[in-house]
Amino acid sequence: MSTPFPTLATKHDLEHGDVLAPRFDAAGLVCAVTTHADTGEVLMVAWMNAEALRLTLETGEVHYFSRSRNALWHKGATSGQIQMLVEARIDCDQDCLLLKVRPQGDGGACHTGARACFYRVIENGRLVERP
Amino acid sequence: MSTPFPTLATKHDLEHGDVLAPRFDAAGLVCAVTTHADTGEVLMVAWMNAEALRLTLETGEVHYFSRSRNALWHKGATSGQIQMLVEARIDCDQDCLLLKVRPQGDGGACHTGARACFYRVIENGRLVERP
Repeated sequence: MSTPFPTLATKHDLEHGDVLAPRFDAAGLVCAVTTHADTGEVLMVAWMNAEALRLTLETGEVHYFSRSRNALWHKGATSGQIQMLVEARIDCDQDCLLLKVRPQGDGGACHTGARACFYRVIENGRLVERP
Repeated sequence: MSTPFPTLATKHDLEHGDVLAPRFDAAGLVCAVTTHADTGEVLMVAWMNAEALRLTLETGEVHYFSRSRNALWHKGATSGQIQMLVEARIDCDQDCLLLKVRPQGDGGACHTGARACFYRVIENGRLVERP
């Protein structure tokens, strides 16, 4: 798949350069961690292909790539939970994004109805729902 | 690979049950987002296999699986940046963990020397270092 992003040759350029060159995996995806821009809460983790990243940066509304539906996913297009992008960061080796967003609609991000996807804590090997 | 964790049959059990049943991918891994327990800052994103997760929960020190070295990775064993686990959460469909930790040593988490891996913001298509 063609991508609008370059590939960097050296570890130094990757880690310390100013060129955005995401290292998409064999499936053409990078991981994206999405936090609430105002509270810092981790809302969800999802995946982006080059097109999703390009659209996110161009429109200011977060797009992912749905692995289950194998399709571009404009988050909130049906639920109303549009994610307005406040800041996008990338990690040291450019294989993961950090998105700070303001969710629209009911303010939630999880398809279960929870505000965020991480609504269960692991306690003594079992899962317990906690705010 | 054998794992100490069960596999759940239904979406309802996966999303609303109290059974920890991580959905490891074809490579036997789940994604882990690690935040600072006190500040909420996203420090890093890495991967865990079943053994790394088991050791993390049993010892209270975070273990990952290094894809580049193809080996279990006791974070901080060489750098001193041991991550003391404060809370572990799992997401709705149990394919991603959220770890709240207190980093030991110099308090950092990134191999570049940065406190966190997300030290660059994407601005107008370029990367800019920002605290």
